[in-house]
Amino acid sequence: MRPQEIIAKKRDGEILSQMELNFFVQGVCDESWADYQISAMLMAMFTRGLNHDEQTFLTQNMLHSGEVLDFSDIEMPKADKHSTGGVGDKTSLIIAPLAAACGLAVPMISGRGLGHTGGTLDKLESISGYNVNLTTAEFTRVIKTCGFAMCGQTPEIAPADKKIYALRDATATVPYIPLIVASIMSKKMAEGLDALVLDVKTGNGAFMENLKKSIKLAEAMVETGKSCDVATQAVISDMSQPLGKFVGNSLEVFECLNILRGEIDPQTTETLELSIELTARMLVLTKLADTLETATKRCYEKISNGEALEKFRHNINLQGGNPIICDSPEILLETVLKIPVNSLLTGFICEIDTKTVGNAICEIGGGRTKIDDVIDFAVGYECIKKIGDEIREGETLGILYCRNKSQSQLILGKLKNAYQISEEKPTNIKLVQKIIS
Amino acid sequence: MRPQEIIAKKRDGEILSQMELNFFVQGVCDESWADYQISAMLMAMFTRGLNHDEQTFLTQNMLHSGEVLDFSDIEMPKADKHSTGGVGDKTSLIIAPLAAACGLAVPMISGRGLGHTGGTLDKLESISGYNVNLTTAEFTRVIKTCGFAMCGQTPEIAPADKKIYALRDATATVPYIPLIVASIMSKKMAEGLDALVLDVKTGNGAFMENLKKSIKLAEAMVETGKSCDVATQAVISDMSQPLGKFVGNSLEVFECLNILRGEIDPQTTETLELSIELTARMLVLTKLADTLETATKRCYEKISNGEALEKFRHNINLQGGNPIICDSPEILLETVLKIPVNSLLTGFICEIDTKTVGNAICEIGGGRTKIDDVIDFAVGYECIKKIGDEIREGETLGILYCRNKSQSQLILGKLKNAYQISEEKPTNIKLVQKIIS
Repeated sequence: MRPQEIIAKKRDGEILSQMELNFFVQGVCDESWADYQISAMLMAMFTRGLNHDEQTFLTQNMLHSGEVLDFSDIEMPKADKHSTGGVGDKTSLIIAPLAAACGLAVPMISGRGLGHTGGTLDKLESISGYNVNLTTAEFTRVIKTCGFAMCGQTPEIAPADKKIYALRDATATVPYIPLIVASIMSKKMAEGLDALVLDVKTGNGAFMENLKKSIKLAEAMVETGKSCDVATQAVISDMSQPLGKFVGNSLEVFECLNILRGEIDPQTTETLELSIELTARMLVLTKLADTLETATKRCYEKISNGEALEKFRHNINLQGGNPIICDSPEILLETVLKIPVNSLLTGFICEIDTKTVGNAICEIGGGRTKIDDVIDFAVGYECIKKIGDEIREGETLGILYCRNKSQSQLILGKLKNAYQISEEKPTNIKLVQKIIS
Repeated sequence: MRPQEIIAKKRDGEILSQMELNFFVQGVCDESWADYQISAMLMAMFTRGLNHDEQTFLTQNMLHSGEVLDFSDIEMPKADKHSTGGVGDKTSLIIAPLAAACGLAVPMISGRGLGHTGGTLDKLESISGYNVNLTTAEFTRVIKTCGFAMCGQTPEIAPADKKIYALRDATATVPYIPLIVASIMSKKMAEGLDALVLDVKTGNGAFMENLKKSIKLAEAMVETGKSCDVATQAVISDMSQPLGKFVGNSLEVFECLNILRGEIDPQTTETLELSIELTARMLVLTKLADTLETATKRCYEKISNGEALEKFRHNINLQGGNPIICDSPEILLETVLKIPVNSLLTGFICEIDTKTVGNAICEIGGGRTKIDDVIDFAVGYECIKKIGDEIREGETLGILYCRNKSQSQLILGKLKNAYQISEEKPTNIKLVQKIIS
C-alpha cells in the first residue's frame, strides 16, 4: 500500500476500510506519510466525507496511536466532561472538584485557549505555582490522592491527533464534524473513562454557531463514545453570551472559587447551574446517583458544606499551587485599570456578539492568536448586564480589566458595539437547550 | 490574505478570482505557502473543481511564475508539438528536424519518461554525447543555427509547475484535467510560440484511456492555448498499441533515423504517418502552407530529399552528439540478448495491453518508476505483429531486447499475456481519431 493509493480512494469518494484508516494513522505517527500527503488526505476526507464507520475507525486508530490510561486500580468510577469551548466557559474548575467530592475519579486532560475561546490549562496557570505538566505517574498519583487531576495532553496521548490537528489548522480542514469528533474523542477515550459528559456550545460565541450543527456534532460524539464502551451524554448549552460573570484567566478562577465558597451572585448563577447540570449527569451515568434530581441535590450539598472547595484546595496543594486563594480568592486579582463599558442606547439587551468580546480580550493579551503567544492572566471583562436586562444610555454594561489606556482605546469601541439594544424585551434564552443521549 | 482563507473558499466549492489564484501561485514560488497547504489546495481543486476561467488564470499565473522565452529576433514562425505520452511514442525526433527543414523554428522543451511512457530527453541521451541541458542562451543559439533545439525544462521555466507537479504526484492529484492543462500549457506557452500542435493519445497505453476523456483534455488545452494567443490544434491519436516498430530508448532513435533516411518498413509506417500529420498541421497553423495537402506533400519531400536528416545531423553536432549515427544508425544498438515472444494461440491479434508492454520494458531498466532511476538505453521491444495481423501458435509476436536471462524470465510471460488473440479479424483502428481545433 502506498499513501497515494489510499488518498486516491477517498478522493474518488470511496469508503476506506479499518485497515486503510489504520495505515493512514500509522503513517502519521511513524512519518512514512509526508505532511503534504496527510493534508491532501484530510482535504479529501473533508470534501468527500467520512461515514459513521470511517469516523469510528479513525477515532479508534487515533486513540490507539498512543497510550490509553489504565485506572483499573482506582475503585471509584472514572468520569470526565469536555466542552467544545466558549467565552467565559469555566465550568471545569468547578466540575472537577465537585465530582470528586461526590465520589468520582476525574482524570481531566485539558487544552489551551486559542482565538476567542479560553482554555482550562491557561486558567489554572493563573494560580501561582500550579503545574499542569504532569507525567502519567504524577497524574495518577494526584487522582488517587484527591479524586481529580487536571493536566495537559502528554506526548503519549493520541500523538496522531497532535500532528493532524496542527495540519488541519493550517489547511482549512478544521470545521468538519467527523474530524472534530475524531480529534476530541481520541483524546477523551484515552483517559480510561467509565462515563463522559460533553458540553456542546451553541450560539455566536461557539465553534458551532447554529443549533442544528451543534446537535449533529453532539450526536456524532455521543455515538462514538458509546462505540468505545464509554457511557456518553451531551448537553447543548447556550453560548450566545459569555457564561457567567467574568471572561479572563484570573478572573474566571476567581469566579469559580467564589462559587465553591458558596458566594454566589446573580451574574455567577448560570456558571453554577451549568456546572451542576454537567456534574449531576456524570453521577447518573456512572450510577453513583439513581436520578438527576438526587444527583443535583447532592451537588448543591457538596458545595454548601464546603467539600468541593476542600477538594480543590487539596488538588492545588498537590499540583504545586498556592492554596491560600481558596480562603482569599481576591489574592488572584492584580491591580489593573477598570474601565466601564457604557451603553450607547436605552432599551433591552437583545444580543451580545460573544465572539467579538472573546477576541477583544484575546487582543489585549487575555488569549492567544498563535500557539506560542504569552498570556496576560490579569486582563479580562466583567459582565454586569446580560441578555434580557434593561439598560439606560450611559449605564454600565460591563467592566474592562486592562493594563493601560492604549489597550482600552484598542477594544472599548468593539466591546460597546458588541451589544444590540432593542426597545422590546427579548424572549429568555435557555441555558441548557437540549440533551443528546 | 492567508493561505487558509483561499483554501477554505475552494474547499467550499467557491470560484477563485484571478488575484486569489495569483496569490496561490506566488505562494508556491516564494514558499510562503507550505507544501501541506499547497497539497490541501490541490485536493480541494480536484474534488470541488475549477471552471474554465480558473483553469486559464491558473495556467497564466503558472506561466508567468517564470521566464517566457522571447524569440522575436528569429524571423521564422515558431511552432512546437506536445504529446501527452505513450509507448513507443517517438515522433518528436522526426517532427523537430522535419519542421525545421520546412522553415519553422522549433524550441522544443521536453520531459523525461515516467512509468510506462517514455520521454524525449531519455531517448536523446541514448545518443552518445548529446546534451539536453542547455541554458536559455545555448538553446536560442542552437535554434538560430539549425532551426530547432531540444532540451529539458530550465529552472527558469514555470517554476510553480515544477513544485506543484512533484506534490501532485505524491498526493494523488495528477489525473484532473484542469491541473493537467495548467501543467502542460504553462510550460508550452513559455516557449514563445506562434503555433502548437498537441498529440493527445487515447487507448490503453495512454494517460487518458477513453476517447471521451481524451477529447475533453484536448478541448481544454486548445482553448487555453488560444486564450494565450497561440494558434493551437489537437490531434487525438491511437495508443491502443505501441506506436511503430520499437519501444526502448536507443531502439526508438534507431527507428527515427531510419525513417529520416527514407528506409521505411511496414512496422514503421505509422510512426512516419503520425509525424507528418503533426508537422503538416504546424505548417498550416503558422501559414507556411495553405492547405494540409500542400503541407503533407512538402513534408514527404523533405524526408525523401534528405533535408530533414541533414537538419538532425546539424542539430546533433551542435548539441554535442556523435552525428555518425545519421549515416550508420546501427551504431546506436548495443549487443544484447534478443528473445522472441511467441504467440500462445492461433488467430488474429485483437488487443495489446500497451501499458503492460511499457511497464515490462520499464521494469528491466528501459524506463523509470522513480524520478532518479538510471535508464538502460539498450533494452526494449520490437513489435513484429500488430493489431489486425494474423498469427499462428508459436509464431513470433515481437522480440525482447534485454541484458540477461533473468530479465527475460521476469517479463516474458507478461509480454505474451499482453496479446489478445481472437478468431475473428478485428476492425481496423484509425491512427488519427479526431482533430480538435
